[in-house]
Amino acid sequence: MFKGLKIYGNDDLLLKLKDKKPFFSCVIATTATSTIPNISGAGASAEMTEYTPAGDMELIMYGKLLCCDIPIGTASEGDFAPTPAMITKAALELTNVPFLAINAGCKVNPNTPYIHLNDISGGNISTGKAVENPGEIFKKAKIIGKELSKTSDYLVIGESVPGGTTTTLGVLTALGYDADFKVSGSSPNNRHDLKNKIVNEGIKNAKIDINGDVDAFEAIAAVGDPMMPAIAGLIFGSDVPIILAGGTQMTSVLAIVKAISDKNDDYNIDFENIAIATTKYVAEDNSANIFNITQQISEKIAIYSVNPEFEKSKEKGLNNYLRGFVKEGAGAGGAMLMAMILGYSIDEIRLKIEEYL
Amino acid sequence: MFKGLKIYGNDDLLLKLKDKKPFFSCVIATTATSTIPNISGAGASAEMTEYTPAGDMELIMYGKLLCCDIPIGTASEGDFAPTPAMITKAALELTNVPFLAINAGCKVNPNTPYIHLNDISGGNISTGKAVENPGEIFKKAKIIGKELSKTSDYLVIGESVPGGTTTTLGVLTALGYDADFKVSGSSPNNRHDLKNKIVNEGIKNAKIDINGDVDAFEAIAAVGDPMMPAIAGLIFGSDVPIILAGGTQMTSVLAIVKAISDKNDDYNIDFENIAIATTKYVAEDNSANIFNITQQISEKIAIYSVNPEFEKSKEKGLNNYLRGFVKEGAGAGGAMLMAMILGYSIDEIRLKIEEYL
Repeated sequence: MFKGLKIYGNDDLLLKLKDKKPFFSCVIATTATSTIPNISGAGASAEMTEYTPAGDMELIMYGKLLCCDIPIGTASEGDFAPTPAMITKAALELTNVPFLAINAGCKVNPNTPYIHLNDISGGNISTGKAVENPGEIFKKAKIIGKELSKTSDYLVIGESVPGGTTTTLGVLTALGYDADFKVSGSSPNNRHDLKNKIVNEGIKNAKIDINGDVDAFEAIAAVGDPMMPAIAGLIFGSDVPIILAGGTQMTSVLAIVKAISDKNDDYNIDFENIAIATTKYVAEDNSANIFNITQQISEKIAIYSVNPEFEKSKEKGLNNYLRGFVKEGAGAGGAMLMAMILGYSIDEIRLKIEEYL
Repeated sequence: MFKGLKIYGNDDLLLKLKDKKPFFSCVIATTATSTIPNISGAGASAEMTEYTPAGDMELIMYGKLLCCDIPIGTASEGDFAPTPAMITKAALELTNVPFLAINAGCKVNPNTPYIHLNDISGGNISTGKAVENPGEIFKKAKIIGKELSKTSDYLVIGESVPGGTTTTLGVLTALGYDADFKVSGSSPNNRHDLKNKIVNEGIKNAKIDINGDVDAFEAIAAVGDPMMPAIAGLIFGSDVPIILAGGTQMTSVLAIVKAISDKNDDYNIDFENIAIATTKYVAEDNSANIFNITQQISEKIAIYSVNPEFEKSKEKGLNNYLRGFVKEGAGAGGAMLMAMILGYSIDEIRLKIEEYL
């Protein structure tokens, strides 16, 4: 359909979005899980990962960092790749699509305006105590989903949560899915061993029976992060289709949405109105399998994979995406898809990204 | 044009809004000024006024109070009138217009989602230290104004700030306007003597020369409230027309906008794209003069006055509006105007309000 786009599953939803008006939001949160050494690549160091969501929002809205003076991105062995927030910023600037940041609970808040859902950042999931108030976050996000969906024909929802693939593994495991060795990561070296260890500790400490009937909010409270109930709430609040702009982290949201819908007559979900849009770097990540996880949740969910062709860029930081740095985040894949739907080529998008580096 | 609507000034802007898509927001803030006895009627007691903006947002979004268990409204000598937030809620429910609360700085935050601009509530203006960071609030609000204006054809902006007519008198006086005995109030008894005393103390303490060249942000910092730079920022950020849904408090915003525009080539304002919409109870308040203040700022600014005909209601609380209780707030007048533009009669609106009481 577009150069650089691969469609896995059917394209019914995508066809419906042509000439329609999107609203883009990015849900941010932090989890102490990301400060465990070697868990997250979303920051220059493990400690710095707690600045990344705030920094991402500052870059998108002001084009510069206010919360810290260390570049936001993935660093490894002397190499560096810039945050995918620059991709999102480029797509937003090209398309003039309305944008709001949604704060689900951050240790470091962005020095920008944002929709406030919650003040409390997530805990280290190995303790089995991850999110204090998932029900509250969900309830508030549902209101926002409803209001934003009144303004537009579809919602594109990104996320910026360092350590988010580990919390995703946590929630998927707690809800009975087989996600071992299937979640992606922001570093070239995907530490499945470490992620598994942390998740198993968390599930043990929370005394969750993964073969039992686990409640979605119980799973989030034990081994999830604050972004998850926020995006689940946005989905249930919305009256319009949703593009989840993210990688394997979005499968945790889908699993939560399915679990809530299965147990509550008040909450119905039509997975034909939801798709994941991500980058090629996640979709074709050999260390992960987003398709398998998604299929376990529902065969109806399409995945759109955008290839930004960063090999064509002169920017070494962008070339590093091909080596497994960063891959996705801040809604980058979905932002590019949205720009494509609105008539911009992947070459125009890449050139715009380069302007900001 | 509509039954119950009076137009002061020209109706050019109003005619442009027919069949157009609005976005409604309500900016909330508190100021310690409202806790001075007899200053504000926006609460069951002086102390309770700090709960009113939070309670208003909870009523609009959840239909019940979460922050406190004392009814929000104006009480006097055993009589009570409910908060105008119920009027706004009725108009929003009828019209399904998208709504967001915008928090510019509250002592008590609502237990709802909201756009976060600032954490710090306003000080008692008699000290001459009212708002710590008006420039920051303005800058963030400008971003929100820009994003919200992308979603709609015009913005309707309300406010909920107890003590706001006193801070309005403060800023208007600081900026050289003659506003003595012209601001309205939420009680039957408009205590101009007390408002003047507090403002004069504040201006003296801040060492402001009201005959000099006073900067708008300096005036807010000394004797204003956090709502003012927020709505001024929304106005400058917006690319679409604005309906200021409020009473005399909105004249402070207009004076600020004019002062900023006069001094900065980057900020231009066309007052033909801004109007005030309020209730008859403010427009025809014998203890105030919204027209005179507005004319001092610009002759181009139209004022739309809505008569909700609460004398026709069986609800004594609404009848009390005719005795000078409440009068306006939470964008009530503008919310009714918006519903009228969208095809609802004032009788339909009043009946809907009664459903919530």
